[in-house]
Amino acid sequence: MSNVRILNAEETKKLLSMSDVIHTVEQVYSEKAKGDTVVFPLVFHEFDPGHADMDIKSGWVKGADVFGLKLVAWFEGNKQKNLPMLSGTILVCDGSTGQPVGILDGAYITGIRTGAAGALGAKYLARPESENLLIVGAGHVATFQIAATLMLMPKIKKVRIYDPIVSEGAKQMADSIRETLVHDFKMTIAEDIVFEAVEDVQEATKKSDVVITVTPAKSPIILKEWVKPGTHFSCIGADMEGKQEIDGTILSAARIFVDDVAQNCNVGEIELPLKDGLISKKDIIGELGHIINGVAVGRENDEQITVYDATGTALLDLLTGKLALDMAEKQNVGVCVTL
Amino acid sequence: MSNVRILNAEETKKLLSMSDVIHTVEQVYSEKAKGDTVVFPLVFHEFDPGHADMDIKSGWVKGADVFGLKLVAWFEGNKQKNLPMLSGTILVCDGSTGQPVGILDGAYITGIRTGAAGALGAKYLARPESENLLIVGAGHVATFQIAATLMLMPKIKKVRIYDPIVSEGAKQMADSIRETLVHDFKMTIAEDIVFEAVEDVQEATKKSDVVITVTPAKSPIILKEWVKPGTHFSCIGADMEGKQEIDGTILSAARIFVDDVAQNCNVGEIELPLKDGLISKKDIIGELGHIINGVAVGRENDEQITVYDATGTALLDLLTGKLALDMAEKQNVGVCVTL
Repeated sequence: MSNVRILNAEETKKLLSMSDVIHTVEQVYSEKAKGDTVVFPLVFHEFDPGHADMDIKSGWVKGADVFGLKLVAWFEGNKQKNLPMLSGTILVCDGSTGQPVGILDGAYITGIRTGAAGALGAKYLARPESENLLIVGAGHVATFQIAATLMLMPKIKKVRIYDPIVSEGAKQMADSIRETLVHDFKMTIAEDIVFEAVEDVQEATKKSDVVITVTPAKSPIILKEWVKPGTHFSCIGADMEGKQEIDGTILSAARIFVDDVAQNCNVGEIELPLKDGLISKKDIIGELGHIINGVAVGRENDEQITVYDATGTALLDLLTGKLALDMAEKQNVGVCVTL
Repeated sequence: MSNVRILNAEETKKLLSMSDVIHTVEQVYSEKAKGDTVVFPLVFHEFDPGHADMDIKSGWVKGADVFGLKLVAWFEGNKQKNLPMLSGTILVCDGSTGQPVGILDGAYITGIRTGAAGALGAKYLARPESENLLIVGAGHVATFQIAATLMLMPKIKKVRIYDPIVSEGAKQMADSIRETLVHDFKMTIAEDIVFEAVEDVQEATKKSDVVITVTPAKSPIILKEWVKPGTHFSCIGADMEGKQEIDGTILSAARIFVDDVAQNCNVGEIELPLKDGLISKKDIIGELGHIINGVAVGRENDEQITVYDATGTALLDLLTGKLALDMAEKQNVGVCVTL
């Protein structure tokens, strides 16, 4: 019998601040690059290919003495049932005893930790004076990308939002994001920062210093000839075989970092360029954590194109979950059960 | 947000009757043999080889519209901490929406469904007039094996219990099992049924019609020359690479059934005999479910030695978990949370 705390999405949302989550993700990247974590093999199953699938990501963060898993299910048909298409559950276990300590909704944590991941890519690889941010894909995760990137890149003046499928979604996000950042993320957003929905991704790319892609695309949305020297890309959307958001020739010209070499090669943005022979494994300089730990050099000059390809590991969910559980204990939030 | 019911070990124990679980396990075997289930790949990690490990079993039972997982952790050092060495958590999800519906302690369910599995091996493969049952290994799961086998094999008159490591454990079990069966399992045990701890496994094997092995052994406890014609073995203990409970030559002389061909070949009782060349894959007649469905013939005559090698799949945990959740809903048991 062990005491297990249960936290739902509303509770994790109240408990987690973006700055704490950024700090946690940075710490996980650092520990991973030191070899102090293990990512267990991914389990993936398609119930109805293209319409319903699930995956189980799991792993162990030695330093934090935590292991566990996240199960994420995506059911397209939930739209008709008025249910969220994506649902997730995180199980956090104690690394010294094996016993479960917490069960959390996985949707909010996935969003916030993924926002932190994309923004950390920019922090460590983009030019520090970057002023123009382009967000490609105006879905759920985009909000978190904008929040985290504005925190870490204080010189950003313009945020362009493009959605390759629902342009109305980009407009809605541009209209409401300031309010969301102030209200939900307790951020102070300078008056001169402009949020703008765009319909011409070619033009927008040409003007951008930092591009964050968060779409489920299976073919490139951004072409090489639109990219100006010195641009940084955080590619977040590709997390499954066959996904791709930017042209492979951008990668062959770029300095590339990843979050988990094995996983990125199988399911990340680099998967198809690797298979197509546009890049080879030796073009992967390392993990972002290697830059954080000072054992790899990130951007080498202002002309270089840089790419951070983040596929997401359970390590992020587990430590973000643990952070929420620790806060919840102090504040007495959630339901405690004896399991 | 979905409504999730949480059930701990005490609650699942009260909700689940052995006869209902036997029925459920039989149903899962039947559906699996028809191809109506999917066992997802096993995730296994040793934190400290031989002292601490965990595994994640997962799968999908189409007919019952349920998928999910069981995480089991084993930490030897918990003994010193006065904590159970084994802990487990089951997550049951709705197969139509992907959303979590229940979270259950996995320890009791693992015990009871494993008891049902071993006993179903005897029901479908042992001689119906079998009177002598030998249980090898007097641990936690042995109680469930005895309960389920006495339910399914009504002519059993003598139950011998042997423990290869702690002979005192076998004595304690023999002394207390009648009371446990009557009290915990609500069974009526005829006065003439004898429970006896034995120290000579050779002698005991010679007298047995049904042998159920539930140990963590890594080398054979039972040798071929002790086995009388017509004996049935349910081999339950081997569930990890390198485990083995009975001599490989028993298998080469036996009619063999399994619960999941791929998994048994990797981690079951048949693993080492296959690797040693004592048997080949064509010696595996099929799954127990094929007999249940009437598409395979079990025992062919009274002299044949039969083996049921059960490694255990998440399918059993998920449907036994679902059974407990359905009962709990009717009886309003457990804690309901919005996750």
